[in-house]
Amino acid sequence: MSSTFGKNIQISIFGQSHSEAIGVTIDGLPAGIKINQEELQEFLDRRAPGKSRYTTKRKETDKPEFLSGIVADVTCGAPLTAVIRNADQHSKDYDNLKDCPRPGHADFTAHIKYKGNEDLRGGGHFSGRLTAPLCIAGGICKQILEQKGIFIQGNIVSIGGNKERPYDEIEKAMKDLDSVGGIIECVVEGIPVGIGEPMFDGLENKIAQAVFAIPAIKGIEFGKGFEVANLRGSENNDVFLYEDGTVKTATNNHGGILGGISSGMPLTFKVAVKPTPSISKEQKSISYKKQESRELNIRGRHDPCIVPRAVPCVESAAAIAIYDLWLSALAKGEIREEI
Amino acid sequence: MSSTFGKNIQISIFGQSHSEAIGVTIDGLPAGIKINQEELQEFLDRRAPGKSRYTTKRKETDKPEFLSGIVADVTCGAPLTAVIRNADQHSKDYDNLKDCPRPGHADFTAHIKYKGNEDLRGGGHFSGRLTAPLCIAGGICKQILEQKGIFIQGNIVSIGGNKERPYDEIEKAMKDLDSVGGIIECVVEGIPVGIGEPMFDGLENKIAQAVFAIPAIKGIEFGKGFEVANLRGSENNDVFLYEDGTVKTATNNHGGILGGISSGMPLTFKVAVKPTPSISKEQKSISYKKQESRELNIRGRHDPCIVPRAVPCVESAAAIAIYDLWLSALAKGEIREEI
Amino acid sequence: MSSTFGKNIQISIFGQSHSEAIGVTIDGLPAGIKINQEELQEFLDRRAPGKSRYTTKRKETDKPEFLSGIVADVTCGAPLTAVIRNADQHSKDYDNLKDCPRPGHADFTAHIKYKGNEDLRGGGHFSGRLTAPLCIAGGICKQILEQKGIFIQGNIVSIGGNKERPYDEIEKAMKDLDSVGGIIECVVEGIPVGIGEPMFDGLENKIAQAVFAIPAIKGIEFGKGFEVANLRGSENNDVFLYEDGTVKTATNNHGGILGGISSGMPLTFKVAVKPTPSISKEQKSISYKKQESRELNIRGRHDPCIVPRAVPCVESAAAIAIYDLWLSALAKGEIREEI
Amino acid sequence: MSSTFGKNIQISIFGQSHSEAIGVTIDGLPAGIKINQEELQEFLDRRAPGKSRYTTKRKETDKPEFLSGIVADVTCGAPLTAVIRNADQHSKDYDNLKDCPRPGHADFTAHIKYKGNEDLRGGGHFSGRLTAPLCIAGGICKQILEQKGIFIQGNIVSIGGNKERPYDEIEKAMKDLDSVGGIIECVVEGIPVGIGEPMFDGLENKIAQAVFAIPAIKGIEFGKGFEVANLRGSENNDVFLYEDGTVKTATNNHGGILGGISSGMPLTFKVAVKPTPSISKEQKSISYKKQESRELNIRGRHDPCIVPRAVPCVESAAAIAIYDLWLSALAKGEIREEI
Repeated sequence: MSSTFGKNIQISIFGQSHSEAIGVTIDGLPAGIKINQEELQEFLDRRAPGKSRYTTKRKETDKPEFLSGIVADVTCGAPLTAVIRNADQHSKDYDNLKDCPRPGHADFTAHIKYKGNEDLRGGGHFSGRLTAPLCIAGGICKQILEQKGIFIQGNIVSIGGNKERPYDEIEKAMKDLDSVGGIIECVVEGIPVGIGEPMFDGLENKIAQAVFAIPAIKGIEFGKGFEVANLRGSENNDVFLYEDGTVKTATNNHGGILGGISSGMPLTFKVAVKPTPSISKEQKSISYKKQESRELNIRGRHDPCIVPRAVPCVESAAAIAIYDLWLSALAKGEIREEI
Repeated sequence: MSSTFGKNIQISIFGQSHSEAIGVTIDGLPAGIKINQEELQEFLDRRAPGKSRYTTKRKETDKPEFLSGIVADVTCGAPLTAVIRNADQHSKDYDNLKDCPRPGHADFTAHIKYKGNEDLRGGGHFSGRLTAPLCIAGGICKQILEQKGIFIQGNIVSIGGNKERPYDEIEKAMKDLDSVGGIIECVVEGIPVGIGEPMFDGLENKIAQAVFAIPAIKGIEFGKGFEVANLRGSENNDVFLYEDGTVKTATNNHGGILGGISSGMPLTFKVAVKPTPSISKEQKSISYKKQESRELNIRGRHDPCIVPRAVPCVESAAAIAIYDLWLSALAKGEIREEI
Repeated sequence: MSSTFGKNIQISIFGQSHSEAIGVTIDGLPAGIKINQEELQEFLDRRAPGKSRYTTKRKETDKPEFLSGIVADVTCGAPLTAVIRNADQHSKDYDNLKDCPRPGHADFTAHIKYKGNEDLRGGGHFSGRLTAPLCIAGGICKQILEQKGIFIQGNIVSIGGNKERPYDEIEKAMKDLDSVGGIIECVVEGIPVGIGEPMFDGLENKIAQAVFAIPAIKGIEFGKGFEVANLRGSENNDVFLYEDGTVKTATNNHGGILGGISSGMPLTFKVAVKPTPSISKEQKSISYKKQESRELNIRGRHDPCIVPRAVPCVESAAAIAIYDLWLSALAKGEIREEI
Repeated sequence: MSSTFGKNIQISIFGQSHSEAIGVTIDGLPAGIKINQEELQEFLDRRAPGKSRYTTKRKETDKPEFLSGIVADVTCGAPLTAVIRNADQHSKDYDNLKDCPRPGHADFTAHIKYKGNEDLRGGGHFSGRLTAPLCIAGGICKQILEQKGIFIQGNIVSIGGNKERPYDEIEKAMKDLDSVGGIIECVVEGIPVGIGEPMFDGLENKIAQAVFAIPAIKGIEFGKGFEVANLRGSENNDVFLYEDGTVKTATNNHGGILGGISSGMPLTFKVAVKPTPSISKEQKSISYKKQESRELNIRGRHDPCIVPRAVPCVESAAAIAIYDLWLSALAKGEIREEI
C-alpha cells in the first residue's frame, strides 16, 4: 500500500501540501462512537502552525470537514472521511525547486521515483502538512482509547540536546537562520495486559511503523531503549511482584512491552526528531539541468524546530497503532469491553 | 495478522520452541529463482546455536526441509514452505515456569493474553528459536537481492558498551552467571533510488516493523539516528552533488533514506539488543498460585549474549522488508529489472 | 476491512447517500498516468441518474472533484482522492423508515449491526449511490487498462427474462408501480496470458469479490457458468490449438480463465441483478416500535430497473480487480510493460 | 497475495500435488479452542479420495500432522500449521504433459505465467489435492462456528442435470470414459444478524472469493440467485414479520444476506462445478515443441465427477469466510460472544 495503516481499522491518508485538500478515511470504526469535536479541534490546534512565534507563518485553520461516517457527531458504521481544504499556499515559492532538490527533503527521491511527475509544491505528499490528517485519525482514536481508560501523553525531552530550557535552542537556531532537532517521549497509561500480536504485529512493530510516517523521525526506542545495550541481564530484567493483587514490575526498563504484548505497566517510547531540513541559510545543492552544484536559497515558510508540533503527531501514531491492536485482542476475546 | 509480514511477498512464520517443528511460508515469490542451498545453510549457521562457547548448548542442526514451492531448488511460483524439526528439547526444564514467569520474557504477557493456554515450553512462539524461520525467509530474500546488486551486511558495534573488544564482555558476563546486551549496525549497499512507499510503508516503517519481530530488540535508528536530535539543520542536511553524473550526497546522515524512499546512498541503521533475560543467577519473580514473590532459578540453556547470533536475524529483517518494497516499486514501473 | 479493495492499488470508498459527499481514494497508482477527464465523465454519465425516463428523478451531476493525487490531470504518485458532493437529498422522505425497514434493503441488517446508529437516509452507505465512487475508480482503471490494450465491455443480456426487447419489461414494471431485474454480461478482451494469482486471488475470486460490492447483484458465473453442471468433460473442455503461432482454444467455455489465470481468450462473466427493492406499490413490513406488521409506502425516488445503470458498475468492478492483478503479475515479472 | 485468505484469521495454503507435503497455516486463531481431531478426520475423509468407486484410485490417508499452534489439541495462540505428506505419487504419469497442456486445466496458463518453472506434476499447486489443506482450515473453522450455534451443510443438487438420481450420471460418464459436472447447494443456519462488512467484505464477496479457490467452480449464486433476473420487485422482496418477537422474513429469496450482512435467515448459496477436465478419452491438444495440434491421452488417476468430494470443500470455503467476518463483527462489538 503506502499511505494506509491498520487492519481492524484502516486509516488512509491523502493529499499534498498544495492540493485542493488533505484528508483521511478511517474504515472500520465501530458505530455509536461519539466524537467530541471541540476536544478534537483542541488536539489539532496543538499541531497547527501559526500558533507561536516558532512556527511557520502559513495560516491554516486546520478545521476538518467531515464528509461521511458520522451523523450528529456519532459514528454510523460507514467509513469516516474528514478533509481540510488547503489555503494560503504560496506555490510559486517552490518554482526554483523544480531544478534543485532541497537537502534533507524527499524532493530528490520523489523526483526519481515518480519520474518527474511528483507534486513538489510544498513537498507534496511528503510535506509535514500531511500530519494534520494523521492527527485527525489519531485524535479520534485517542478519544476512543480514553473512554477505555487508556491515556497517551507526549512530552519534549530535549531540543538541541538542551533538557533544561529546550526552547532556548529554538531561539538560537532562529537567530542563526538555522533549525534544530530534539527528542520526544511518549507515555501510555492504562493499557490492559495482552494487547499486541506476536512477531510482526507487536506493539513495538506497529507503533514504530506508525511513528515513521511522521517526516523527520529518525529513531525510536522503547523503555530503556539503546541503554539496554550497555546493561547486564540482572540489571535490565524487571522483577515481577504483586501489588494489591495485581502483577506489576518493580522497574519498567521494558517500557510496558514484553514479547510485543502490553504488560500492564506504562508503555514508554522515545523518538528522535531531526532538525527541519528547510533553513533560511543558503545551502549547497545541485542543478538537474546543468548537472552541477549550485547554491540554494529556500523561500517559503518553515519552522526552525518542529519538535513542539510533532508531539501530537507522535501521540497520534501511538493512538492508531494501539487502538488497532486493541481491536485485534477484542476480536479474539483476549480482552473484554465493559458495556 | 500477527506472524505474517509483507504485501507483495507474504512471509508467514509458525512454530513454538518445543512444537513438532518451526517453519515459514513465503507466498508470492516469483517463479524461476534459483535458491543456493549451500549458501542458505551457511547463512542459517551464523544464527544456529552450539557454534561457539558463547551460545546455548542446545544442539540444533537447523537444516530446513523444503515442503513446497521449489522444484530442483528453483522456485515454481507456488508458496514456498520450509520447516525445521525441533529436536533436543528439554521441556521439563520449563515445568517450574508454569507458576513463575521469567523476568524480561513474554511468559507473563502471553499467560494473560492466552488465558493460560499458551505454550510456555521454551518460550513457545516467543522464543528466539523462531528467528530460525525468519532467517530462512531472510536468507532467501538476501540471495534474491544480491542478484540485483543489493548487499546487506550486519556488524556488531558494541557489547556491554565495549566497542574495542566486545567479546570480552560476554566472557565477563558468563563468569558472573549473567548476560549482556549490545548494538548491531546494518548497512545495505546497492539499493536503487526510489524504493519505499510514502507514509506508512516507507523503508524506515517496514524495516522497523520487521526488525522488532526479533525478540530482544528495543530500539532502532536510521542514519545518524538519535544524534540528529542534537544537531542543527545546517549540520544534519546532506548536501547533494554529482559524482560521475550520478547524484550522491557529500555525507550520509540520512542513512540512505529521504521521505521513506531510498536515496541511492548506503542504507544504514542500528538496533539495540537487550541482554538475554534468561540468566543463571537466581532472580526474584512471583508465584501465580500463592500470589506472592518467590525466588526463580532458570534451568534450561541460554546464551550469555545473543548479539552475535542476532546479526543474521537483523540482516533477514532488512532483507524481507527491502525485497517486499522492491517488488512494490517494480509493480509501478518505478524501477526496471534487468533481464 | 470493509469498503476497501485491492492489494497493489487500494481503493477505499466512503460516503452515505445523504452525507456531505461520497468519494473514493485510490492508493498506489503509478505516477505519470494521464487521466482523460472527459472520457471519465462520459463513463460516469452512463451510471448517473436522470438520464432517461427509467431512472430516479434525483438530479445528480456526479461530477467528481479531485482533491489530491493528480497535477494537471496526471497522477503524481500520491493517493488520488475524488469526491462528489451530495445534492438534492430529500432526507425526510426517509423519516418513516426509522420504524419500518424496507424489504430487500439493508435497512434491517444495518439497524441491528450498527445498533440504531446507522445512517438510514437514502440507504446510507448501502445505497446504490455508492457505486458512483466505484465508477470513478473503475473508470480510471479502465482507462489505464485500455492503454495496455485491455478492453472491458458490459452489455444487457436480458431484463425480466426478455432478451429481445428488454426495455419493454421496464415499461411494464413502471406501469405496475413495480420493478424488474435482469442479467448483464461482461467481456474483457486483450488480457495477456498469466494474470491472476492461485487459489484466493485468482481472476474469478477477485472479480467476484469486487462485483458483489454492487448492491443487487445476487450471482456471478464465468464462461459457460452454471451450464457446465450439465456438461460432460468432453463437451466442456476447450481444445487448445495454434493460430498464427499463438495458443488459443477452439471454444471458450472456460471464459478466458484457467486455474484463476487468464488464458488469453476473452474473459467473460455474467451477473444477475435483482429487481430494485424500492417499489411504489404498497408493501408489507414491520414496525420496530409496535413489534408488529404494518403497511409500507416507499416515498423517495427510485429506478424501476437498475440494470442499465449497473452496466458501468460491473465494468468498474472488473476493471479494479483486473488492474490490481495485472500489477501483481508485473511485480513478479510475469508480464512486461511496453515502454 | 495469492494462496492466503482472511483478515482476522489468515489462512495460508501451501504445497503441490507431488511436493513433499501440502499444508496450511492459520494465523490469528484465538487461544483455548479445543480441536476435535476425530471429527476433523471424519470431515477430511468426506473429501479424501479412494473412498468410493467414483474417485481416483490415488491412495491418500489425508491425515494431518499438526506442527504447531496446539498443545494437547487446544490452540495456544500461536499460528497453527498442519501438513499432509504426499504419498503414492506417480509423477512420471505426467511426463507427457511437459509438451502438451491438458484441456480445461491450468497447465497452459501456469506454464506461461511461471515461464516453464511451474511444477506440473499432478497439476502442481493448481491440483484439486490442495483442497485438502483448505478442508483442514475449513473443518477447524466449522467446529468453532458450531460451538457458536452456526451450522454449515452442503448438499448435491444435481449431477449432469439429474436431480433425482445424480449418481447415475457418474456411472454413465465412467462408462463413456468421460466426466460430468454438477451443482452443490450450501445452507448455513444460526448466523446472528449483523455478520458481514459493507461493500467489498460482505458475506457474498468473501464467500465468493473463498469458493473460487476450489478448482472447477465456475459460478456462485446467493438465495434465488440468477432467477431474480426474471422477477418483479414485488415477487422478489422478502416481507419482514415478527415471529415470537424475532424479526424474520416470510420468504428467503435474499438467501439470508441483505447489504452483504446476515439477516438471521438461513444463508443459502449454490455453486456450479464443472466436469473433471481430466478424462480417459483421447482428446486434442497441442505440442509446444512442434507448435502444432496433437492427440493427448491422459494417464494418471482422476475422478469421473468431483462433485461429491467438492461438498466439504464448499462447506470449508463458507466456514473460513464466515468465521473471519464473525471475528470482524466481534472486534467492533456488533455481536457478543457468550462465555
